[in-house]
Amino acid sequence: MTTKTAEIICIGTEILMGDIVNTNAAYIAKELTNLGITMYHQTVVGDNPKRLKESLELAFSRSDVVITTGGLGPTYDDLSKETIAAYFGRKLKMDEESLQSIVEYHQKLDIPMPENNKKQAMMPEGATIFPNPNGTAPGCAIEQDEKTAIMLPGPPREMAPMFDHFVVPFLLKNSGKVLLSHNLHFYGIGESLLETKLHELMEKSLNPTVAPYAKTGEVMVRVSAMARDAEEAERMMEPVIRQIEETAGEFLYGIDVGDLQTAAVRMLKTKGLEAATAESCTGGYVSKRLTDVNGSSSVFQCGVCTYSNEMKRQLLGVKEFTLQQYSAVSPQTAAEMAAGVRKLSGGDIGVAVTGNAGPEPSEGKPVGLVYIAVDSDWHKEVFEMNIDRRDENLRELIRYLASSRALYLLLKTAEEYPGNSEAAK
Amino acid sequence: MTTKTAEIICIGTEILMGDIVNTNAAYIAKELTNLGITMYHQTVVGDNPKRLKESLELAFSRSDVVITTGGLGPTYDDLSKETIAAYFGRKLKMDEESLQSIVEYHQKLDIPMPENNKKQAMMPEGATIFPNPNGTAPGCAIEQDEKTAIMLPGPPREMAPMFDHFVVPFLLKNSGKVLLSHNLHFYGIGESLLETKLHELMEKSLNPTVAPYAKTGEVMVRVSAMARDAEEAERMMEPVIRQIEETAGEFLYGIDVGDLQTAAVRMLKTKGLEAATAESCTGGYVSKRLTDVNGSSSVFQCGVCTYSNEMKRQLLGVKEFTLQQYSAVSPQTAAEMAAGVRKLSGGDIGVAVTGNAGPEPSEGKPVGLVYIAVDSDWHKEVFEMNIDRRDENLRELIRYLASSRALYLLLKTAEEYPGNSEAAK
Repeated sequence: MTTKTAEIICIGTEILMGDIVNTNAAYIAKELTNLGITMYHQTVVGDNPKRLKESLELAFSRSDVVITTGGLGPTYDDLSKETIAAYFGRKLKMDEESLQSIVEYHQKLDIPMPENNKKQAMMPEGATIFPNPNGTAPGCAIEQDEKTAIMLPGPPREMAPMFDHFVVPFLLKNSGKVLLSHNLHFYGIGESLLETKLHELMEKSLNPTVAPYAKTGEVMVRVSAMARDAEEAERMMEPVIRQIEETAGEFLYGIDVGDLQTAAVRMLKTKGLEAATAESCTGGYVSKRLTDVNGSSSVFQCGVCTYSNEMKRQLLGVKEFTLQQYSAVSPQTAAEMAAGVRKLSGGDIGVAVTGNAGPEPSEGKPVGLVYIAVDSDWHKEVFEMNIDRRDENLRELIRYLASSRALYLLLKTAEEYPGNSEAAK
Repeated sequence: MTTKTAEIICIGTEILMGDIVNTNAAYIAKELTNLGITMYHQTVVGDNPKRLKESLELAFSRSDVVITTGGLGPTYDDLSKETIAAYFGRKLKMDEESLQSIVEYHQKLDIPMPENNKKQAMMPEGATIFPNPNGTAPGCAIEQDEKTAIMLPGPPREMAPMFDHFVVPFLLKNSGKVLLSHNLHFYGIGESLLETKLHELMEKSLNPTVAPYAKTGEVMVRVSAMARDAEEAERMMEPVIRQIEETAGEFLYGIDVGDLQTAAVRMLKTKGLEAATAESCTGGYVSKRLTDVNGSSSVFQCGVCTYSNEMKRQLLGVKEFTLQQYSAVSPQTAAEMAAGVRKLSGGDIGVAVTGNAGPEPSEGKPVGLVYIAVDSDWHKEVFEMNIDRRDENLRELIRYLASSRALYLLLKTAEEYPGNSEAAK
């Protein structure tokens, strides 16, 4: 991999004033890291040509590649291309292809094109142009005297696709390589323990790289390889992935699945099973996450939120005796809720959550105590969580972590289904 | 207001590598803007003392106040205080009170205190110390030769409360003033139209300031006043708030309520009413948001997600004829779902959502078509949404916007309740 240095300059007064969070910097930084390009600086400046020029001069004094976002709009204070072209001693010229794209963009949306927008088709002479199918401002790049400037639009939904489709190949073009990755998703193991298990691999493997990403309540490890072509990249990654599976495979819940709910829905589909949810403290979070997944309707048709004891009895048939004897937050109640929603829906697996999301202890049950139950013909289980954390929004965190555990148990229960898909329905 | 300049240096290799998004910069920038402090630069550097020193020197060459986040941890590469103290020619000294806090923090969590953590109690001589109830690293500030350095912890859940409780008063202390704000929440009006209506006020009112904040599907306007004391600040804000109410009051759904779900739950409590939810395409999002609100259990006990026609019939009594004739995504189905869940739960208001969240048209219904119904003795309504947007995660956006509209209709229906609280239950 090439050992270039890069830095990012994000241009935009709205970022300086805190009106928007700078997600572009994180996105680009992550992509550059995957490409093996080192970054030592990130800067934000306002829509001010003098300060932009100073930032550019400083940036090029210490980095090979400078990537800017913002300042490509049609108004008078959008001056990225002008400033950077001037730095390289180049003029701006009208690019006819870009102009045509901008005209067509407005035609398609059936809105008149303001005269200002023509400015967005003015490009530094000799620049590589990056099309923008999601907006009007094309991006561009200038390479000169061992330095590279890449100018990208500000809005993340325009910047990110342009980066993925055009900038990554551009950065790789001289190396004649492609970059491929696989995401390994882990649940039930903390980030520091996983990093300890994979430490040697992470330290020693330079290509492919092995990089951890913390998420709420779970960990992802990305394996990335740079190679001549896709087949070679896959061949390079395969033994590394196998080694990770041997080391921590019991916690690996999926590769390239995205999240627990997608993994659960896919497993249910594969096995031909249907699930139903009964929630108390999570309030609909589990069913919301399940239905985040496109196509979940073939494996999920019924979720209930029984937020009171009355509703637990009425909708799910939880016994009055159980509620009185053990209270709502108990393994007994959880088990009856799971069995009840399974019966109610006619599904194969019932999942139930009951707990105390805070802020106060309730009926003697501490904040963070949650029971999650699964009910099916081939497997029944109740799992107890004791979520003991400090967080500004502890209620949300407890509910999120409990819903993750519920989705995980659903995934595992479906995975263990002994029948075949034909027999299930 | 004082016309100081400030800049932010966020220290952390994880930010440089794009592992986390830099929300601290946006948070601090927004707060500084409210305080009338101008910012022209934001920088990110890694955990590297040489580059931190260079960034500090550059920052102090052009700004009065430099705020850093990160680098206050217990490990060897946490060097913010050392580097900044050295810049000001000060030594670090053990602060006994901070040390005691750190010891107690570990005792409370019942975990042994690593020796490293003592480092976090070392403070620059003469620094103002900011306690950290949410973590182990206290923050601090040095004032010297007309320059101010403020050092804050990196984790947002530690930094933000410290900033609000200690840094804001610190920044205001010489001015002898306090800063107060009120958040005005608007729904049903777009950001640009609201800004047009309030344009003159926003331009002309310098103290109090009137600042808009875009949120997904709604807009917030913050009125902030700097004054000698709280009473004076309130007196200054009152006529401005009244003017905003006169201009755009029909869209104002609450002041300092936080969000639609909180406003809805508070209104239900005030009126002594109970609500129930029946959801299809939103999949539990409405009940999840309602139960986000602490205390919602007194106004909400039942939510169902009837993701299939079968469940709409079985749980809610939606007529087979209705589903056949009009399909699931119709005002008729929405109305029957709302009435059905109200009957099922025995509540006062039933809210139902049925629609097409995509990605494909379904039964002739386009993506983004959603019907939301409310059912109560005093008011019944079905609202049609046509969500026509482009977004990387359109499904999530459609579901979120539909759940917002459902919460808004619930709020308005509860507001219109003609009875009194005693008569309701």
